[in-house]
Amino acid sequence: MSSQMRRIALARRPSGLPVPEDFALKEAPMPAPGAGEVLVEVTHLSLDPYMRGRMDDAGSYAASVDLDGTMVGQGVGRVIASRDDAFDEGDLVTGMTGWASHAVVPAQGLRKLDDRLPPTTALGVLGMPGFTAWTGLRDFGRPKAGETLAVAAATGPVGSLVGQLAKAAGLRTVAIAGGAEKCQLASERFGFDAAIDHRACVGASALREAIAAEAPDGIDIYWENTGGKVLEAVMPLMNTHGRIPICGTIAWYGGADGTEDRLPKVWRSILVKRLSVNGFIIFDHWDGYPAFLEEMTPRVAAGDISFLEDVAQGLENAPAAFISMLTGGNTGKQIVQLA
Amino acid sequence: MSSQMRRIALARRPSGLPVPEDFALKEAPMPAPGAGEVLVEVTHLSLDPYMRGRMDDAGSYAASVDLDGTMVGQGVGRVIASRDDAFDEGDLVTGMTGWASHAVVPAQGLRKLDDRLPPTTALGVLGMPGFTAWTGLRDFGRPKAGETLAVAAATGPVGSLVGQLAKAAGLRTVAIAGGAEKCQLASERFGFDAAIDHRACVGASALREAIAAEAPDGIDIYWENTGGKVLEAVMPLMNTHGRIPICGTIAWYGGADGTEDRLPKVWRSILVKRLSVNGFIIFDHWDGYPAFLEEMTPRVAAGDISFLEDVAQGLENAPAAFISMLTGGNTGKQIVQLA
Repeated sequence: MSSQMRRIALARRPSGLPVPEDFALKEAPMPAPGAGEVLVEVTHLSLDPYMRGRMDDAGSYAASVDLDGTMVGQGVGRVIASRDDAFDEGDLVTGMTGWASHAVVPAQGLRKLDDRLPPTTALGVLGMPGFTAWTGLRDFGRPKAGETLAVAAATGPVGSLVGQLAKAAGLRTVAIAGGAEKCQLASERFGFDAAIDHRACVGASALREAIAAEAPDGIDIYWENTGGKVLEAVMPLMNTHGRIPICGTIAWYGGADGTEDRLPKVWRSILVKRLSVNGFIIFDHWDGYPAFLEEMTPRVAAGDISFLEDVAQGLENAPAAFISMLTGGNTGKQIVQLA
Repeated sequence: MSSQMRRIALARRPSGLPVPEDFALKEAPMPAPGAGEVLVEVTHLSLDPYMRGRMDDAGSYAASVDLDGTMVGQGVGRVIASRDDAFDEGDLVTGMTGWASHAVVPAQGLRKLDDRLPPTTALGVLGMPGFTAWTGLRDFGRPKAGETLAVAAATGPVGSLVGQLAKAAGLRTVAIAGGAEKCQLASERFGFDAAIDHRACVGASALREAIAAEAPDGIDIYWENTGGKVLEAVMPLMNTHGRIPICGTIAWYGGADGTEDRLPKVWRSILVKRLSVNGFIIFDHWDGYPAFLEEMTPRVAAGDISFLEDVAQGLENAPAAFISMLTGGNTGKQIVQLA
């Protein structure tokens, strides 16, 4: 076993979009597990938009990462030392390892993985993003056959599963994605009924026209991953009694993007159209995770669900991959494979 | 019976706050009821904020009033001619009479009133505003004992009942109202735990500080009657898993009031705080009206519920009373007593 481990620390709090200088690669002595703890050698790390919120001082959904603290995140890896009866050396596990080559994790925070599925599925389609899509659509989207769903960031790990679940439930599904390549993915790989390239539409009005053409009966569920231009485009297309699960507002991580006050129109639309707008964060819903795994694991194993991963190489490249992901530079679930 | 009736017509569509020229007082021959219809002599007419939406061309919650059409509204009155077996001359009834001295109403759109209660209660505390408060609080506010509720327009017919129902359910209740007189009413007559005069607070920040001082545990339910400055003040005070039933956005009937884009912050708060924001319109909920009447009629009859009416005199003064109400000039449920 190496005597040193590596980790990515929060070097300073970003303003808007993070930059490489906000992160620092550090070495530290290899930690030893205490009683009831397990030492994991991380093989794959998940990068997710929620981590941007954790870099802020406060006010986001969960505890901030401390300055010089290790960036939070889920990883998969092998147990290399265990002081808990439930885990043995060599077990394939997942848990909140952080952005690090190794991590000591309490046994109750780890889950053994089924060796028959690719281990990265535990970070994507069967991990937090997949569970987010499944929970949010069921609890806050409340899909009904014959309705229309629109989702932005549609080729991302959440959006792509939202689309597939909605389609399977009998909805018309409209993808909004950035660039022709992602639109092709949305249609061909993820089975959306239509895909719209928001980059090809200058301004919210042009985007709205493009979406309207593919949603002739209006939109019943707008799955909110982005905010920004897409929200502005979609809002007038919402049907009465529509639902908007708010899962992310990635377009606004860097601050506001508009000049006029869009709040009155949106707020009034919520009233006039009797919309149900619900913010949700998957960390509140872990009770339902076993039911999700029970339903979705066989569907993934059977190849009924498509998913896509974008794998960066090496812990040292995690910050660049993360920054790129926040501006849509990834294609599919962003993962870092550790050396 | 007079041979002529009088009505208030929509003379033109207002831009922002209506002005007297948007209305016209007209005379017309007295209508005669057809089979299954009833002719009502209106004694009291209800004025409600939703009527402003009906004056617009489209896009609001319900059918617009046509140009030269009679302004919509609920009235109470006496049956003076009936061609339906369910109603007799002299019956005290309520229904959608419009802003008019007389109206022919289909029998199935009328309800007989209990002579033992003041007839105007059918327009306020036991009418649409009361039913709005009761339904919205139960279905979208979902109050729990020990929580804190804030409501703007707190001495209005909806807000004052929301406060009393929440208080009875064990919540701390914070009123936001315009002017010292209304604040006194909120505390003394309607039993709010605290009352804040938004007119005494310059800007949303000052209002926020005043509210925060009276809501030391944060706000779990913000009953949205207004939008505007109150919303901006309240949003940062919302607790995780808070609920915002949107019942009205009267501050924005005249258009936006801000310069910067407040949408990103609000939208992100909905996510980060996992808020549930639901627009609702009482016209979707009439199924529940009998249950409301059954529960609330005895409470009103027993004097357990306070209500307040602001009565203007004469149909010809309905437009001025309506305009005044839209800017908070009334105190209590606005009613017009017909000559």
